Amino acid sequence: MQLKKYRKKAQSFLVEGTKSVLELLQGSFEVTHLVATEPFLMQNEEVAAKLSDKLDIVTEKQLNAMSALKTNQSVLAVVRCRSNEPLGLNENEYAIALDQISDPGNLGTIIRTADWYGIYKLICSQDCADLYHPKVVHSSMGSFTRVQVYYTDLHSFLEEYPVVYGAALKGENVHTTKFGNGGILLIGNETRGISANLEELISKKVSIPRLGGAESLNAAIATAVMCDNIFRITPEQSPGLL
Amino acid sequence: MQLKKYRKKAQSFLVEGTKSVLELLQGSFEVTHLVATEPFLMQNEEVAAKLSDKLDIVTEKQLNAMSALKTNQSVLAVVRCRSNEPLGLNENEYAIALDQISDPGNLGTIIRTADWYGIYKLICSQDCADLYHPKVVHSSMGSFTRVQVYYTDLHSFLEEYPVVYGAALKGENVHTTKFGNGGILLIGNETRGISANLEELISKKVSIPRLGGAESLNAAIATAVMCDNIFRITPEQSPGLL
Repeated sequence: MQLKKYRKKAQSFLVEGTKSVLELLQGSFEVTHLVATEPFLMQNEEVAAKLSDKLDIVTEKQLNAMSALKTNQSVLAVVRCRSNEPLGLNENEYAIALDQISDPGNLGTIIRTADWYGIYKLICSQDCADLYHPKVVHSSMGSFTRVQVYYTDLHSFLEEYPVVYGAALKGENVHTTKFGNGGILLIGNETRGISANLEELISKKVSIPRLGGAESLNAAIATAVMCDNIFRITPEQSPGLL
Repeated sequence: MQLKKYRKKAQSFLVEGTKSVLELLQGSFEVTHLVATEPFLMQNEEVAAKLSDKLDIVTEKQLNAMSALKTNQSVLAVVRCRSNEPLGLNENEYAIALDQISDPGNLGTIIRTADWYGIYKLICSQDCADLYHPKVVHSSMGSFTRVQVYYTDLHSFLEEYPVVYGAALKGENVHTTKFGNGGILLIGNETRGISANLEELISKKVSIPRLGGAESLNAAIATAVMCDNIFRITPEQSPGLL
């Protein structure tokens, strides 16, 4: 189940680690199987009670043999994949669109960051990393349970929305950009940036000021800095605060 | 050389990938060996000329067999490690101190981010990931050639500096914090945060406002958002700009 083709066939994916599994059980994903060690179940009795008919008790050694992560784990869940469904967006909210984010660690970190800033809708191009890849699930640190992700053709999708901020190298300074109440933040591929055919759909290019020698920022880092600037309190909004 | 003990013994490390190797050759690291494919050398004749006595020409297949990265590479350099030397800091500059950052990808991304914001001095606790780990070098995207890194006991180090901003969960809002002209930004471990014995050395705790459900941010993400706030133009500095 560490390979996409098996996940697709089984329509299931793995969630590993105490924190991720506990967050998972608070959300609405369907857990079809829980594999856990005895110490985990003794510490989490309500989990054992809730999922008693879906439970396999194993040793830590057996669990580690199944695990995709290298650290010692005490629990692992088999979870039903969600169907890929469009997300309704209204004009007073922000969503993030990802163009060819191929590194699973980056996708997971972006999901975690979106969750931190209260962005719960993520639109991915078809060639982004798979949401159910073990590294995406792991690096999202439980946030995949709260952030909805929809894979689609980004060009057709973005055409429908008038406000698209594109994270780019030669745009308006993000520190002085006036962001509205909603819109889509478009983040491009780790090395190539935003695809040429999507550039025409950007309503405003926005850049993070560079003071040093690096040519670019990591895609998840750029997403976070953009989000932090979108959601900061501006002097206009709260003149007394700054 | 993918294992720390061999890197330590050989006092050398590997740099892979065209971008990283080209940036390396512009810096002051000593390259003791360059392994490259013929197509790479044809496209980079000045490299071939400069390092002709240290050159091994191999096929792409041979190179991939040596590589620690999974993608197709065309060049790999064997580079002399630098000795671990203290960095002189003056009071008008910023440096970043890392407490137990154990993930090599995070360390590399922090180095790249520091380089973007013009911070060229990084102080690591002894138990941080190894600077010369292939994943650190790779995820720094060439920035390891510009950012100096010093491993030391952080408690003794921080005691010497009066201005230490600690990235923490319950601190002053980073959006309204008035940062001075210099200081140290202290970032804690990925899961445990800043060590208890270092907390007393923080002169100001600073937090990134959270709007959503995630419990925490990735350490490299937190570093970037802090840096972006330290180096933004404040209304006081440029009243006309905002």
